[in-house]
Amino acid sequence: MKPETSIGLIGLGTMGAALALNIAEKGFPIAVWNRTGDVTRRFHAAAGPLAERIVPTESLAELVAAIAPPRAIILMVPAGQAVDDQIAALAPLLSPEDLVIDAGNANFHDTNRRAASGLPMRFLGMGVSGGEEGARHGPAIMGGGARADWDRIAPVMEAIAARAEDGTPCATWMGEAGAGHFVKTVHNGIEYADMQMIAETYGLMRDGLGMASPAIGETFAAWNEGVLRSYLIEISAAVARAGDPATGAPMLDVILDTAGQKGTGRWTAIEAQHLATPVPVIEAAVMARNVSARIDERRAGEARFGSGPQRLAVELASLEAALIAGKILCYAQGFAMIEIAGRAFGWHLDLPAIARVWRAGCIIRSAMLNDMATALAEDSARNLVLAPFFAERLQSAVPALRRIVAQSVLHGHALPALATGLGWFDLMRTSRGTANMIQAQRDFFGAHGFDRLDGRDDHDGPWKMGGESSTVTAAR
Amino acid sequence: MKPETSIGLIGLGTMGAALALNIAEKGFPIAVWNRTGDVTRRFHAAAGPLAERIVPTESLAELVAAIAPPRAIILMVPAGQAVDDQIAALAPLLSPEDLVIDAGNANFHDTNRRAASGLPMRFLGMGVSGGEEGARHGPAIMGGGARADWDRIAPVMEAIAARAEDGTPCATWMGEAGAGHFVKTVHNGIEYADMQMIAETYGLMRDGLGMASPAIGETFAAWNEGVLRSYLIEISAAVARAGDPATGAPMLDVILDTAGQKGTGRWTAIEAQHLATPVPVIEAAVMARNVSARIDERRAGEARFGSGPQRLAVELASLEAALIAGKILCYAQGFAMIEIAGRAFGWHLDLPAIARVWRAGCIIRSAMLNDMATALAEDSARNLVLAPFFAERLQSAVPALRRIVAQSVLHGHALPALATGLGWFDLMRTSRGTANMIQAQRDFFGAHGFDRLDGRDDHDGPWKMGGESSTVTAAR
Repeated sequence: MKPETSIGLIGLGTMGAALALNIAEKGFPIAVWNRTGDVTRRFHAAAGPLAERIVPTESLAELVAAIAPPRAIILMVPAGQAVDDQIAALAPLLSPEDLVIDAGNANFHDTNRRAASGLPMRFLGMGVSGGEEGARHGPAIMGGGARADWDRIAPVMEAIAARAEDGTPCATWMGEAGAGHFVKTVHNGIEYADMQMIAETYGLMRDGLGMASPAIGETFAAWNEGVLRSYLIEISAAVARAGDPATGAPMLDVILDTAGQKGTGRWTAIEAQHLATPVPVIEAAVMARNVSARIDERRAGEARFGSGPQRLAVELASLEAALIAGKILCYAQGFAMIEIAGRAFGWHLDLPAIARVWRAGCIIRSAMLNDMATALAEDSARNLVLAPFFAERLQSAVPALRRIVAQSVLHGHALPALATGLGWFDLMRTSRGTANMIQAQRDFFGAHGFDRLDGRDDHDGPWKMGGESSTVTAAR
Repeated sequence: MKPETSIGLIGLGTMGAALALNIAEKGFPIAVWNRTGDVTRRFHAAAGPLAERIVPTESLAELVAAIAPPRAIILMVPAGQAVDDQIAALAPLLSPEDLVIDAGNANFHDTNRRAASGLPMRFLGMGVSGGEEGARHGPAIMGGGARADWDRIAPVMEAIAARAEDGTPCATWMGEAGAGHFVKTVHNGIEYADMQMIAETYGLMRDGLGMASPAIGETFAAWNEGVLRSYLIEISAAVARAGDPATGAPMLDVILDTAGQKGTGRWTAIEAQHLATPVPVIEAAVMARNVSARIDERRAGEARFGSGPQRLAVELASLEAALIAGKILCYAQGFAMIEIAGRAFGWHLDLPAIARVWRAGCIIRSAMLNDMATALAEDSARNLVLAPFFAERLQSAVPALRRIVAQSVLHGHALPALATGLGWFDLMRTSRGTANMIQAQRDFFGAHGFDRLDGRDDHDGPWKMGGESSTVTAAR
């Protein structure tokens, strides 16, 4: 006899299958359907004892019939057209109170569009982070859409989500429409930056200090006991320690240094440009992946300009401090972006809640997010670098970051993310910057005008007077 | 008696008025119209001896009637909806062979859309650079659309354009549809970067060396006699030397350090993200402008973290060399972006021709563009840093850039553009990078797979074997 289900899931790829098993395991019977029936049947057959809470179906109509109304149906299909197609196929089968939840990797603009398109059913966009392992055993879940719709499925989502140390489930409603997918996008942008900064410290250990992979792994493992404690540091230790079964060499040493990407880092960078909110560390991380793909050019570059990064002397403790500083700076940029986006999109995003939802389950989960949640709760409009807790930490860690970046620059190591984080920090702590030169130039060639330090109502330079501009010739 | 005209212009703002006078001055009678008739009449009255070649009109119908078919009508109206509105208003009045030329600051995607929209007339999108002065006495002109349509107006455009030292007019057809506006957009992105790098050297002289504005102006003037010879260095000398008529202080010292922007730098950064082509120096320049606007945060930052940039010891000659290196690196990124865009959009953009069209008239005009045109003509798919001429120049200038960036980092000066250019260069000359760490991480948490250095057909790490991944816990 089939169990009574109130939830369904479409799309039994890696993530969908893991999520369905997670839901069943937490006690919720679930109906599932996949475009290819064979996939559904194999999934069900391999589900072990959980199979009795899973209802495999062979058609969309059968799926819908297997769920008691009001239904909730999770889509875990490729982002983009496939989501629109799936919604269109479901539309004639559902009633207005049924709820469709897009749990894929949607661009939040698409989620906004869908939410505003007058769909004939209820609709949520939900960011799910944590990879396959997270989806199976506890992801971080960022919901977006009508609050009442989220509340309907919150018990399921909170049951399947990861839990922070204090027991709070990492499943939270972020705001209307595309807010959940937006927060997930910034999460991924920060993930790019975190990974890039780790890769930069790896490079300094490997090429600057001449350390072998296992020793680098030990270093990451040691860092994982301190302020940097996080999933990404933990797996960096694991991958650096791993050996290649095929050759016996350290695994890292045989992997090609060309990073792939699926585009969420890029989306973050693009959205930050639209919002005029600086996320240079994320931009640097995307840039580094793009350059990593240009392997022929890099080889030609090394052939032309001599050997790459040189040996240098840095303390591992300084490297750790530099990474701590870089991480704070990067997150400060990311949270500032979220704060500005919340105001721009009218979402009233709850920054401490976002920091809390990222504490477990997702790829960027880390001990530091606890402290960030606390600091953001004090004043979420204040940049994180100015929060007393992090300002103090920066004050002690930035000198190491300076030394590391300066040494790297002199010895030909590229630290694009760490260096650009420091550059942003120095801009952000300089009350008298150099943009007055840019304003003067703009006024000179474009009569754009400028404001004055003394507040006088006089917005043009003297260069137009007496025809001085006509004496400026084109470059010869 | 009215002159026979074959060309018209709509929109007598700063740029439109200057362009109309330039056209009349070069011997082409021109009919003009402005939404507000008073503007047209005042423009005509102030045109002096050129007034006899200018036909002021009071309505669109009158404008069209004043031009002999086949007509060419230049639009110089605000980018965006105003262009669409103006085209729609003209449509019923024009015949299919009449040509409308959008000479405003259009987003090239809009130009692509218009070109593909089946307009009832011929259509070109044309980038015009050089500010008011350029428009009046010789801009750089980047045309896009059907080649045959460009050829019709090329005699006028070549007559009014700036001329390079060798006499070549800086007016060139760039390619189909939005190609002209695209090249203009990248021009503006490079302009942002050029201005930012100059502002960074200004800051080092002001805050690092304690130089007064007039002395800084002398330095720029001296640089303008060398490799850096360019309009932007020339006007930097002029603004640094200028005094404030109101207070007698150096003009730069009274201008607020908050830079405005109209968005073309941002467009360049966004488009580069879509194309996955790195333009980090341009991104850094946009970032610096965005941070410059956060004046309250910067003041709070300086209050919290102590005084800003410190005195340091650098040679002016090293600073000049650093700027030379930074400029080459920035242009190398810009031209690489154009090369990739040409292939992505099917435009077959002619890189040496683009370098040549930028040699005079436009804001980034410089002596160095001559050498760039030559280097790109040798091999336009090769990154500019690998062209022998520029590789040699970099080899001699990069050591100074390293010293300047390292000193600045240690003394709290932010050089976001110069530092990020160097970081990109170091990535581009490192054959064995660190993205293998990123690929290992991605495979660990997302089973993304990776390629191997040894080419073995084995794309997954050992971390999934024996359930090792299950031993990795969430951050505590």
